[in-house]
Amino acid sequence: MRELWIELGERSYPIIIGDGLLNRLPQALSDRGMGTDGDLFIITDENIAPHYLSGLEAALKEQGYTVNSFVVPGGESSKSLKWYENIMTEAIQLGLDRKSVVIALGGGVVGDLAGFVAATYMRGVRFVQVPTTILAHDSSVGGKVAVNHPLAKNMIGAFHQPELVLYDTATLLTLSDREIRSGLAEVIKHGLIWDEAFLNWCDEHADALLKLDAESLSYALYRGCEVKASVVSQDEKEAGLRAILNLGHTIGHALEAVAGYGELLHGEAISIGMVGSARLAEELGYPATIVERTQSILERYGLPVRIPKHLDTDAIMAAMMRDKKFKSGQMNFVVPVEIGKVEIQTGISPTLVRSIVDDLKGEV
Amino acid sequence: MRELWIELGERSYPIIIGDGLLNRLPQALSDRGMGTDGDLFIITDENIAPHYLSGLEAALKEQGYTVNSFVVPGGESSKSLKWYENIMTEAIQLGLDRKSVVIALGGGVVGDLAGFVAATYMRGVRFVQVPTTILAHDSSVGGKVAVNHPLAKNMIGAFHQPELVLYDTATLLTLSDREIRSGLAEVIKHGLIWDEAFLNWCDEHADALLKLDAESLSYALYRGCEVKASVVSQDEKEAGLRAILNLGHTIGHALEAVAGYGELLHGEAISIGMVGSARLAEELGYPATIVERTQSILERYGLPVRIPKHLDTDAIMAAMMRDKKFKSGQMNFVVPVEIGKVEIQTGISPTLVRSIVDDLKGEV
Ligand SMILES: NC(=O)c1ccc[n+]([C@@H]2O[C@H](COP(=O)([O-])OP(=O)(O)OC[C@H]3O[C@@H](n4cnc5c(N)ncnc54)[C@H](O)[C@@H]3O)[C@@H](O)[C@H]2O)c1
Ligand SMILES: NC(=O)c1ccc[n+]([C@@H]2O[C@H](COP(=O)([O-])OP(=O)(O)OC[C@H]3O[C@@H](n4cnc5c(N)ncnc54)[C@H](O)[C@@H]3O)[C@@H](O)[C@H]2O)c1
Ligand SMILES: [Zn+2]
Ligand SMILES: [Zn+2]
Repeated sequence: MRELWIELGERSYPIIIGDGLLNRLPQALSDRGMGTDGDLFIITDENIAPHYLSGLEAALKEQGYTVNSFVVPGGESSKSLKWYENIMTEAIQLGLDRKSVVIALGGGVVGDLAGFVAATYMRGVRFVQVPTTILAHDSSVGGKVAVNHPLAKNMIGAFHQPELVLYDTATLLTLSDREIRSGLAEVIKHGLIWDEAFLNWCDEHADALLKLDAESLSYALYRGCEVKASVVSQDEKEAGLRAILNLGHTIGHALEAVAGYGELLHGEAISIGMVGSARLAEELGYPATIVERTQSILERYGLPVRIPKHLDTDAIMAAMMRDKKFKSGQMNFVVPVEIGKVEIQTGISPTLVRSIVDDLKGEV
Repeated sequence: MRELWIELGERSYPIIIGDGLLNRLPQALSDRGMGTDGDLFIITDENIAPHYLSGLEAALKEQGYTVNSFVVPGGESSKSLKWYENIMTEAIQLGLDRKSVVIALGGGVVGDLAGFVAATYMRGVRFVQVPTTILAHDSSVGGKVAVNHPLAKNMIGAFHQPELVLYDTATLLTLSDREIRSGLAEVIKHGLIWDEAFLNWCDEHADALLKLDAESLSYALYRGCEVKASVVSQDEKEAGLRAILNLGHTIGHALEAVAGYGELLHGEAISIGMVGSARLAEELGYPATIVERTQSILERYGLPVRIPKHLDTDAIMAAMMRDKKFKSGQMNFVVPVEIGKVEIQTGISPTLVRSIVDDLKGEV
């Protein structure tokens, strides 16, 4: 079992990671001052509920907690104002008050949605995360919660820190193969932006991680959270440094949008995007070895490193230019300047980016 | 011109109060670091817009600001998730970003709605209040923002402090007579809970305030905000003291609910509620002079001090008991123990409260 404290003064909280931790949630709650006087409200989705919900409810009830649950459909479309309102209605009908605790049992979708509920129900109640995807290690740090607007992702949200994150690696065993690889792309990103040694470790432990070896997973999630925490703690207000977390995301978001959400998983899209950023670095004069290293580790994880040919270059460019980060025809990009270190480069010309997009559509 | 600083460390902000200040908004914005690089987004309602919107827009544009506006229908029903979503859609379509500033031009309804938009658009943008009702002096302090849920008021919200509050007493001249009296009820409340000298001043200046004399209004709003700030600063997290701000609100909220929102204005309902609290104090052994003093000042302001006869006592009691503050058949009440001082009394029996409700339905 590993424990990482996210230091935020009064709002500091632990991320507890280990194999088979789910039934320790009652104890962890009470250790963190959430006793049985506060009603628990579990929010989860229909893919997760059949595996873990009733067991968790039973464990909590046995320790005297009052537990209610709400199950949303699986997938990004549940991160909407409609489901947000449905959950609020249920919470009010249940008579939940300020002492209640919202628990997100699920991936990033459930985490963001439940977190926004917790941030705004009666102007804010306590929030606990029980992540069930690898990708959700990324949402365990930083306090961002949100729902999507039909016109754009994550437009409506808040910052709301959890009281506790309990990460049971055993819950990851029911993830699909694609979701596993996609989640690991974000782990690799944390190596690429911050820590060459960790990237090497990821390279060596690829087989173990893909097989969901508990000990390796636990370390990978721990270190991934720790890297993100280091970045965020130096830039709580998103002034600058935090942008490095977006390595691969400029191209990645555009690919997700153009492919239609769902065709490419988030981690798959940023995998391609990270290769694109490395190619950009090469064009800007940084060593070509960065491209080779980036591409080879992603391929080892079975992640895509080329843009699907049927995606239109114009559409990809348009999606990128719509992004508010690009004013007056110039683009900002996070580029790797060596392995384990990235920089934000401004004034990149769209022509150069376009040539890289075209290039990424070619043969490997 | 009066200026009151609300001290909140990094989030401190000024409330500027005076006659004819509206056209000074551009200067006040730039003094507070909101320059022309941030787009302005004014939210107001259809009763206020015809009087003040185009003038304000023109003054801002003249100083180089980019200004967009959104007008909601007048009244409490605009404080809904539906209008919240409509405003979010418009904000996204306008391309507003994190540097944008949301400006509430209106009463408490517009303030709470616009404030919740500001709190959650892209996880939070800057917020400025330009209150146009007397009652809104109460929402200028404390940082509470919210929308209503069909099942209950103010259930969905956040704490989001403004950067600036600019109060132009001249905008109050278009308020209806009832709205003026209702708003002044909340000013009187601030005297009753905290400051006998201010209550005496309110008594002496009743005519001036009801005639909207600029200098008297400016002082009343200033002192009202200052009293609320004193209470809130001693209890930012709503642990205890802040509850004294609810003098008259337990009965008042029940009356609003039973009468159907709209029949009784908020200030009218709490006026009756404050007389009820004073009657309760008398029953608990505090001097009867408190009732006389409370009732006489409210009558001087033309505010109701009796429950309309057609409101059903059972319904009023039921509305009060539904309030989550009352567990296990006992009630908590804020009661005046002398003029300018209140206490929270626990364990009040519903039978006693019922007798007071009945009493308040009798003749004066
Ligand atoms: N708040 C943040 O800082 C942050 C960071 C990164 C991503 N995100 C958000 O996270 C979301 C993506 O997260 P995600 O990839 O975890 O998506 P997800 O929550 O939709 O989970 C992916 C799929 O796996 C299923 N699933 C989840 N756990 C399972 C399990 N243990 N067994 C079987 N099936 C399971 C889900 O039902 C879903 O179909 C996006 O909305 C993104 O915006 C937020
Ligand atoms: N956030 C807080 O701390 C706080 C405190 C107290 C009250 N409130 C909220 O405030 C709301 C009540 O505020 P309110 O009484 O200001 O109501 P309001 O905003 O609805 O205004 C009352 C009426 O007067 C009209 N109006 C407003 N200004 C006008 C002007 N200058 N000229 C002509 N007409 C004008 C409005 O269109 C409306 O019809 C409630 O929703 C309450 O919950 C919030
Ligand atoms: Zn990501
Ligand atoms: Zn009030």
